This record gives sequence, C-alpha cells and structure tokens, in this order.
Amino acid sequence: MKTRNVEDTQFDFLVSALHHGSFISTSDILAWMKEQNERVNSEITQIPISKLKDWTYKDDRIRHKSGKFYSIDGINIKTNYGITPEWDQPIINQPEIGFLGFIVKKFNGVVHFLMQAKIEPGNLNIVQLSPTLQATRSNYTRVHNGVAPNYLEYFTGKMPVTKLVDQLQSEQGARFLQKRNRNIIIEVAENEDIEVKENFIWVTLGQIKELLRYPNIINMDTRTVISCIKFGNYSESTLRLLSVFQNHNKLLTSKSESFLYSVLSATNHLHDTQDIIQWISALKFKYELEVSKIGISEMTCWNYDGDTIHHEDNKYFDVIGVNVQIGNREVVAWDQPMVRSAQEGVMGFLVKKINGIYHFLVQAKLESGNFDIVEMAPTVQCLTGNYRTGENEYSIPYLEYFLGAKTENIWYSTHQSEEGGRFFQEQNLNLIVEVGDEFPIDVEENYCWMTLNQMLSFVTYNNYLNIAARSLLSAISFY
Amino acid sequence: MKTRNVEDTQFDFLVSALHHGSFISTSDILAWMKEQNERVNSEITQIPISKLKDWTYKDDRIRHKSGKFYSIDGINIKTNYGITPEWDQPIINQPEIGFLGFIVKKFNGVVHFLMQAKIEPGNLNIVQLSPTLQATRSNYTRVHNGVAPNYLEYFTGKMPVTKLVDQLQSEQGARFLQKRNRNIIIEVAENEDIEVKENFIWVTLGQIKELLRYPNIINMDTRTVISCIKFGNYSESTLRLLSVFQNHNKLLTSKSESFLYSVLSATNHLHDTQDIIQWISALKFKYELEVSKIGISEMTCWNYDGDTIHHEDNKYFDVIGVNVQIGNREVVAWDQPMVRSAQEGVMGFLVKKINGIYHFLVQAKLESGNFDIVEMAPTVQCLTGNYRTGENEYSIPYLEYFLGAKTENIWYSTHQSEEGGRFFQEQNLNLIVEVGDEFPIDVEENYCWMTLNQMLSFVTYNNYLNIAARSLLSAISFY
Repeated sequence: MKTRNVEDTQFDFLVSALHHGSFISTSDILAWMKEQNERVNSEITQIPISKLKDWTYKDDRIRHKSGKFYSIDGINIKTNYGITPEWDQPIINQPEIGFLGFIVKKFNGVVHFLMQAKIEPGNLNIVQLSPTLQATRSNYTRVHNGVAPNYLEYFTGKMPVTKLVDQLQSEQGARFLQKRNRNIIIEVAENEDIEVKENFIWVTLGQIKELLRYPNIINMDTRTVISCIKFGNYSESTLRLLSVFQNHNKLLTSKSESFLYSVLSATNHLHDTQDIIQWISALKFKYELEVSKIGISEMTCWNYDGDTIHHEDNKYFDVIGVNVQIGNREVVAWDQPMVRSAQEGVMGFLVKKINGIYHFLVQAKLESGNFDIVEMAPTVQCLTGNYRTGENEYSIPYLEYFLGAKTENIWYSTHQSEEGGRFFQEQNLNLIVEVGDEFPIDVEENYCWMTLNQMLSFVTYNNYLNIAARSLLSAISFY
Repeated sequence: MKTRNVEDTQFDFLVSALHHGSFISTSDILAWMKEQNERVNSEITQIPISKLKDWTYKDDRIRHKSGKFYSIDGINIKTNYGITPEWDQPIINQPEIGFLGFIVKKFNGVVHFLMQAKIEPGNLNIVQLSPTLQATRSNYTRVHNGVAPNYLEYFTGKMPVTKLVDQLQSEQGARFLQKRNRNIIIEVAENEDIEVKENFIWVTLGQIKELLRYPNIINMDTRTVISCIKFGNYSESTLRLLSVFQNHNKLLTSKSESFLYSVLSATNHLHDTQDIIQWISALKFKYELEVSKIGISEMTCWNYDGDTIHHEDNKYFDVIGVNVQIGNREVVAWDQPMVRSAQEGVMGFLVKKINGIYHFLVQAKLESGNFDIVEMAPTVQCLTGNYRTGENEYSIPYLEYFLGAKTENIWYSTHQSEEGGRFFQEQNLNLIVEVGDEFPIDVEENYCWMTLNQMLSFVTYNNYLNIAARSLLSAISFY
C-alpha cells in the first residue's frame, strides 16, 4: 500500500474535523439512523448459559464448540496496586487481534469517512454507526472461507489505496484478557469510484464529533479508530490554518480559533514527553500485576449456577447467555455469552489551562487484562457503585470535581456504549470538565498533566492510552 | 526527582560521546581492568543440575528452593512466522523487572559515567564494566532487607538527583520469557561530592564507545542502558555543534563532521516514523505467537537427565548447573543453573547511505519470549550454526553481505558477551557493514530502512528494539 506525506494527512484530518459534511446534514443522519433502527427486527432474550446453542462448559470454562471466537475464563489477579491485593474474576479471552477499518475519500477536498449503520445484539438501540469494516483476523484472512465482509478487498491490498493510520490498540482491560484491535484508515483516491452499499454513508470527522454529542449513536469501534488520528503540530503561527478556515466557509469564530490553538498546540506543555515516559516507566516498575488462569469453578466470590456467572454480592458485572434473533431483510439467529455490567460507569477527564494551553489530567491505571501493567486512563474511570450515597467501598480521587461541576465548566457529558458484540446494553457516562485556578498543578504520583497533542503522540506508539481515554479523546471538538 | 531540559541533556550526552575522558585514558582503563581480573579468584565448575545446592526439580521445572530469583521452565510455541510452525524449548522465567542504573556527573562540563568492574560467573573474562547499579526489584525495594547494593540510595529518591533516562527494555526474547529491565540514568549535581568506591571508575560515553571496540570489556547491561540515550535532532545547520567541538579540542576532523551529521541527522529519512509504525503494526497483526507453559519432561526433542537440559541433537543451547566460587577479597560460593549456547551467534546491521544519510536495515523478528510478538532486530541475528559450510537448515537473508564484506566497508566487528549472570561464556559477533549503490533500496516485507535518529526515537517508547539491536546501537561511534 502507498503512504503519503504525514503533515498533509494530519492537516486533511483537521479540515475534516472542522467540516459539517457534503452529502447529508447531521440532523438528517440522526433521522436516517432512526429509520435504520425501525427497519430492524430484533429479539434479544436472556437464556441460561448452559442452554446456549453451540457453546459448552468444558475444561472449567465457557467456550464455543468449534474452539473459535472467544471463551469466558477465570483469572486470579495479584497486585500491589490499589487497596485489593488479590481477587478472582471472569474475563473474556479472545486471543485474535480484531480489525477495525475505515475507508476515507476526499470530496471537494474534504476527507469523508464511509460509515456503516451496524446491528449489534448488545447495543441499547441495536443500530449504531461503525467503521467501514469490523472483522476478526479469521474474517480478514478468510481462513474459514465464509462470505467476505463488505469492502474487505480494499483492506487486503487488492485495490490501490493509501494507508493513513495503522495501529494496535487495547480493549477494556478489566473485561478482556490482553485483547487488542488493529485500527486502520485507508484512503481511496479522489478520482476513484467506490460503491456506497446499503446501510453505508459518507460523513466528515466534524460530523462524527457532532454525533458524539448524542448518546449511543457512534459505536466504540468508531471512537477507538478516530482517536488514533493526529492533527499535526501547530505553533502559534496558525496562519496556514486560518487561511484554510476561510476557504471552508469561516467555520471558526475568533473565539473558537483561540480555543483550537489552546487544544491542539504542540508547545507550552507542562511536562516534556521524555519526562512523561519516565513517569510511566517508574510506575510500571513499581506496580506488580500477576495474572493466572483458573477454572470458573475455582473463582473465589463468584458462582456459576448454569444460568449466569455472577459475583456473590451481585457486584461489578455478570456473564449471561443471550439468544439473538436480529436482522433487517433477513433475520439471523444465534446464541452467545455476553458481559452485563452491574452499574453504569463514569469516565471523565479534568481539563485545566496551564501556560495558556489546555492540559488533561491523565491517570496511570492498572487493570487486570492490561497488556503492559498500567495504561494511561481518564482522570476518573469507575463503576458508579454507591458513590452518590457515600457508601462506596473506597474513595475515588477527583470524583467530586465531576459530580459538583457547574454547567458552564462541562465541556462534554454524554452516555456512550461499550462494544455491542460482547457487552450487553452497557453505557457509561463520558465527561470532560474544566477546572480553574483553584485546582492545584501538583498532583498525586499516579496522575500527570498532558496536552491533547502529547496524548495523541502516545496513542501513535500503541498500548499507551486505554480505551476509555481514547473514547473521550474522540469526543473532543475543536470549535 | 528533578528532571531537566531534554535538549540540553541530549546535547550533553553528545558532547560526552565525543570526549575521551578527564581522569583516566582508555588504555589505562584496559590496564586497570586487567588488574581487576588478576585480583579475582574464581572457580566456575559445571555440575549436574540435580546436584545444585538450594535448587530443586519440582512441578516439572527447575526452581530455587526459596521460590525467588528465577526458574527454568518449558514452553511450547506455535507461530506462523518463519518455517517452523511449532516447537518446544526451555526458557528462563524471571518475572521481576531488573534494575540497571547509571550515576552520571559533569566534570568540567563533560558528563562522566560511574562504572563498576563487576564480577559475573558467566563472563568469559570474569570482570566486565557494568552500570553503577544492577539490582533485582527485590534488591531495590529491599523486601528481603539484605545488605544494600552500592549507591542504591541515589536511585531511591533519598538523595537530590536529576533523572535523565528511565525506560523499560526487553531482554533476549529467545531465552527469557517476557523479561524486561528498567534502564535508568540519574545525574548528580556538578558541585555535589560523591565517593568513588573500590572497583568503580568515571568514564565518558566516548570512552565506553572506544572500549566497545575491544571484545568483552563492556557488559550487556551497560550496552542496553547507553542504547537508551538520545542525542538530539540535528538539521543541516550543525553550527551549534561545531562551535562546541572547537571548545572540546577540535575532536572532529572535517571528514568526521560530515559523518556525524549523516549518522545523527533527524531529516532526510526514507520512511516517515508514522509509516514505520504502520509497517510494524501490520506485521504484529500478521504473525501469531502462542506460548504455553509446559513441564520440562513434556518438551518434545529436549531431554533432562539430571545433568543438563539439552536438545536431542545438541543444537541451539543447553541448560547446565554451575558451582561458583568467586571473589577478590572475600570469596563467596553458590550454585545456579545457566544457559550455554551451542554455537556462537552473529548479530549485524547493514548500513546504506540513502538521501545522503545513513540508514540501517532493521528486521521485524519474532522470538518466543517476546513481550509483543515482533521486535525490531538487526538485519541478521542468528546462531552461526553450519552456515559457513552451507549445511544450515535454512537460508538467512542478507547473511552473505556480512560474510563477504570487504575490510573497508566494515564499520564494526567485535565479539561481545551476553549477560554473565545467566549466560555461560556466551559471546556473539557484533557487526556493522556498509553496503553501496549495488544494494537495493527495496527490501522484503520483514525489513525496513531506518536512520539512527529514528531507531533511537523508537527505543524511547520501550519494547520496540530488541536487545541485540540495542547492543549494536550502543557501539556506534560518531567520529
């Protein structure tokens, strides 16, 4: 595959992020999504795990009879991070790297993303906007020779395309055992025709960010892929930018221009990147994470009764069986285990202007399935639990700044879904809250202030930011 | 710990790399090392593994009776990389992150490194120059409350120091199961006194690089720490450099100035860094690496007879028992298992001038103990096997360019040791060979041309370059 000049690509993405779309307005997309939803017939029924067709409880874990897809395993965790030195839990074990790919194409000079209105059994609203292609590695390499997914041929080197992004990124570390996905964006040439199949649609990055203001429209896979996009390193001379804004119908007011700079700036950061690497290296050395596979029946505090795998106090999450009957034209049916959260979660970044530039308060967080001990997480990432009533098991640093935030300081507050292929109707509140001068610059050992530009640089090198942090990054609008 | 301006630090390291030392000439260091060696009494005797004091064969693996240190386990590997889809092998399992630390201090404005003449049982010549501190995580955190290693207090935050480097880097992926070390460099202020203890010595980076021209003087731990040093991003305006060279006694001739630029340049690379990330991401997606722990007795093609663990054809390596009696003033004795290579290995980079800048041919290599499937390795990294007689099991790409290199194209050709705490008298030939216009720019899928500046950037982000590649980087002189 061809590649192209990185600076040009980043600049093109920035223009796309500031553009409201060539083909369909954002409100029409919402109407179209509603229509897509109404056309779907779906019946999602919880059934006992022991009754799941094609799934079996064998070798003390839940697996597909073919040995493919994924399994539900037990793990034991020992760590010196946090207040719980040891625990057991079920986890999704899916060793294959998944494939999440966007096709993009410029129309009138503006990059548009080919999105799919995709049906997933766990989605609260069944249909959400997903990348052009979601595939397992087996789908991708077609080892099973099934029906090829739509547009697969554009990603396998058979068509002339230009690769813009190709990164490996982690999934939910508390639910997946070291699972990663390949996040990829390829570009089809402006003069190349490409069929828009049913349920597909061209939108700009600006529209995706607009749609992210609505709950549960943009799926997690889309959010993780677009979080991999860098927008370039801009200094105070944003002149080149300004000239382009004018070409694009004066998208920005002078107020939003200064906001754009203070978010995207490549300078004036509080900590140098090398110092941030030293910070995270020291924490990876400090914290131990020892994960051993155990049988489901061996897990302390967890029970499998043939129906669900659940915590004895019904905390955290459970694993349930689901019978799926779903489709628009053609209804297909299958069974699968899914993870169902016991509570809604909160993931939020605090933002503070330091040296005239917005900095995000990043947490180094250890999760059981993490590939590399700790990853960079939002300031707060937790199950809501009983914290509203003050009966939580432990205090969560900085949570009060989210709960008590004044409306004018809330940049972003929207419910977004976890991936609907594995998670049953799970949504979490995504929050970005600005804090002022009263908030200290000095923070605890596990926290560090970074600019958006720095976070996006770490994303590039894979496995640094966790999926919750990336989900929030994807929601940041530049105006 | 304090940190300081990154550009200044990088520039200081460059000056140190060009300096021949303030206290002792390089030839005097060699004489001093000879003396250190002669003062050591050592008796290293191979004994049967079953006779090792304090070690036991239990749960089908070899482990220390205390459960500490490391164990020798069996693993089964399945992969679609290379020509062997499945094999078993013994591996060193040492889950603790090791600690390799240098204290540096400026004398007359030039950074000097505090090195230790360290005794290791596996060293061919017993004593080699090592970092100021080599410690296990338990040593470091002093969980066992033994005697504190020399200078430990400088690394634990008790003394006022400035941290210059702090990274996690991998060890030998074919011998260690996902082992990593923390590589750290801290600086003591110029006006701060620090005692030089017996067997310690101050040297510049330029002297370390000079000593790397001699076989088996600089140990592997030193090589990996100094490979983490970045020297800055220099454009064609090397004026700032030149003015400093003049201050430092005109170290460079005009010829070596141009060499310096063509090695260190931050521009004119063939591939953008983003494209290199895409290249390695695609290969991590392509190649599978499935490692399962198995018992020593379960390994196909390997036998443990109470004496050694060896391959049935005596290939690759074996695990032996060693009785160690060693010391200068005070002789200490212990037993331990060690890994002994069946043959000498070769690790070599091909270098080629492209766009006026030297590029290194990097290989994406999968090894069984790798933390993340493939790492960036030298162009060639292999056991010598029977390749000289043409009876090798498989052909090794580009090997002929090393074997047939003309003297004037050989930048570097020296034997260097693996770490003497685990590897028994193992040395490998380290080679850097320049190729000319006849060598193609287009290379196979698993290979990629990178500049030194690019490789050093990847080192920064941890787990990208393997230890063989880093060992070679550490040997590159700039004049």
